[in-house]
Amino acid sequence: MTVRPLAIKPRLDSPTIALDVMGGDAGLADVMAAAEVASERYPRLVFRLHGPEDRIRAELPHCPRLAATATVVHTDEVVLGTDKPSQALRRSRTSSMGMAIQSVKDGLAHAAVSAGNTGALMAMALFALRTMPGIDRPALAALLPTLKNDSVVLDLGANTECDAENLVQFAVMGAAFARTVLGLERPRVALLNIGVEELKGTDELKEAAALLRGANLPMIFEGFVEGDKIGQGNVDVIVTDGFSGNIALKTAEGTGRLVVGLLTAAFKSSWLTQLGYLLSRGALRALRAHLDPNAHNGAVFLGLNGIVVKSHGSANVRGIANAIGVAHDLIADNVGERILHDLANFRAHRPDTSAVEVAK
Amino acid sequence: MTVRPLAIKPRLDSPTIALDVMGGDAGLADVMAAAEVASERYPRLVFRLHGPEDRIRAELPHCPRLAATATVVHTDEVVLGTDKPSQALRRSRTSSMGMAIQSVKDGLAHAAVSAGNTGALMAMALFALRTMPGIDRPALAALLPTLKNDSVVLDLGANTECDAENLVQFAVMGAAFARTVLGLERPRVALLNIGVEELKGTDELKEAAALLRGANLPMIFEGFVEGDKIGQGNVDVIVTDGFSGNIALKTAEGTGRLVVGLLTAAFKSSWLTQLGYLLSRGALRALRAHLDPNAHNGAVFLGLNGIVVKSHGSANVRGIANAIGVAHDLIADNVGERILHDLANFRAHRPDTSAVEVAK
Repeated sequence: MTVRPLAIKPRLDSPTIALDVMGGDAGLADVMAAAEVASERYPRLVFRLHGPEDRIRAELPHCPRLAATATVVHTDEVVLGTDKPSQALRRSRTSSMGMAIQSVKDGLAHAAVSAGNTGALMAMALFALRTMPGIDRPALAALLPTLKNDSVVLDLGANTECDAENLVQFAVMGAAFARTVLGLERPRVALLNIGVEELKGTDELKEAAALLRGANLPMIFEGFVEGDKIGQGNVDVIVTDGFSGNIALKTAEGTGRLVVGLLTAAFKSSWLTQLGYLLSRGALRALRAHLDPNAHNGAVFLGLNGIVVKSHGSANVRGIANAIGVAHDLIADNVGERILHDLANFRAHRPDTSAVEVAK
Repeated sequence: MTVRPLAIKPRLDSPTIALDVMGGDAGLADVMAAAEVASERYPRLVFRLHGPEDRIRAELPHCPRLAATATVVHTDEVVLGTDKPSQALRRSRTSSMGMAIQSVKDGLAHAAVSAGNTGALMAMALFALRTMPGIDRPALAALLPTLKNDSVVLDLGANTECDAENLVQFAVMGAAFARTVLGLERPRVALLNIGVEELKGTDELKEAAALLRGANLPMIFEGFVEGDKIGQGNVDVIVTDGFSGNIALKTAEGTGRLVVGLLTAAFKSSWLTQLGYLLSRGALRALRAHLDPNAHNGAVFLGLNGIVVKSHGSANVRGIANAIGVAHDLIADNVGERILHDLANFRAHRPDTSAVEVAK
């Protein structure tokens, strides 16, 4: 077993991930097991493991691939789930989450992955990495299951209020993300709205729609989409402000749980339905797998000078491994460069929207 | 068969409903059948039927209770589903929808019920009936199924942007609605937000929360609720601006359909699962019934000088009868007076929120 000593720079010709082993409900052993799974899946992947050295080293014998390449960066400090972003920021340089981000800032890793406190991660990442040139605000993007393929939704809570320019930037970032994680050349992009007619919604939405309609971007702009169409999977990227995006994502999660809860109660209601359940359970397992958040795990802060992936707090080993996989793919696809390129292109051929009817 | 002649004032000692027989997908015969069902359920209910007299009279023999009490108000003009609110307003006095609202304005009916174009109905109702004293904007409220009892959600799309005062008024109106339709003395009320901490969300939400926390209203104010908790049924009234409310409602509808769609596909996947379905279908029917929009039909425009109920465009006879039932209950409970009383009480003991931290 060889573990690289501390403070040695990883070979940055290999995709390198700074992993906060302390974040989330799963616990250190599961986070490391997930890194081992990801190492098997992507043999070139290299890790920096941020957390308590003793506990990490005690676990490494169970993770032979990880042990062969990982750098351990010791800290005992952790960001708690209850910490406010302001409290967490004070431990930017001392906590496992903060140090993982710092590794990206210092060029020692390409991406940071944490399952910890979302608000803290967002604040630390923004503070340390800053936004990319041309991006005013970063956005949190994630995948949502639909009847067809997954859809990308952003922003999911980084910005409660957004102007048209922010929404256009989100569309560019979301399309770049969809190209990487969904493998689409020209993703279909739509703005979330309360109707599909051009006159519906806020002024910001109308102006953003006009800008996207006229722009020459590597996407198919589909106009507006309503909340009930999200599940149909007819668009690949759904763009919205962080308030509505958060409401939509959480309402979808809650409704999914509601229906599954009612379904479970329905199956338990008699011996006949219980027998029915037994006969159908293979199919129901497939349904559950389709909706399993672990299959869609890995929300990404887009628009920063560095990649930061948030694994769901309740994700299991497979879920965390998927989040690491998302980080790997974003590194491999050089998603930051794509976004910069598309934004520069948008600016060079910026559509004239002075004729759009918006009350200013 | 006696049908009251045109232009005779109904006995307003009886609850009287002005019914647009032309709205929605169901068609005139089903709308009238629904009124017949409601007449059986509420024998004191009296109807004014707005629509083409010939077709209404041709249908009346199938609706003996309705025939015995209804007034027919002839018009051939209808508001189409594709009409913009501005187009519809031009037919405020000539279309079946507009004339139903006009009946309320003229004191010839207590409530108008239509399954037609929502935007048109909202515009006509606001234009003809105006807001109640103390209400700045009306709100669209509806019932959403949860794991427990239904919850009231408002606003669902009447106002895309709302200030704190609007949200407080929505809370008062939503609580009054919940008392009537859910039969609760002190409904639990919460504001929809992207987190439950006091510092989360927009300034409007923080200020509205402070006002409601300090107010002495016949409700239990529960603070903020997140989208994923809507389906749990732990609050009775969920208050939000029309943009987020519309997104949440439609996302919930879409996700429900997504899960049911996946479930149907799962059951069809093999003969074993099909057999399982056959054995379980009683329970699954109960599940479908629990989620059936027709069981929760009847969105209400609250805050106007008169009651206006919107039946879902795709509602069936039972759904439309339920919407008429909602109108009946609101008339019987005198919901307008309740709202006026609670608002006056709120104003008389208005909490001091000058210490609330909001960036103005």
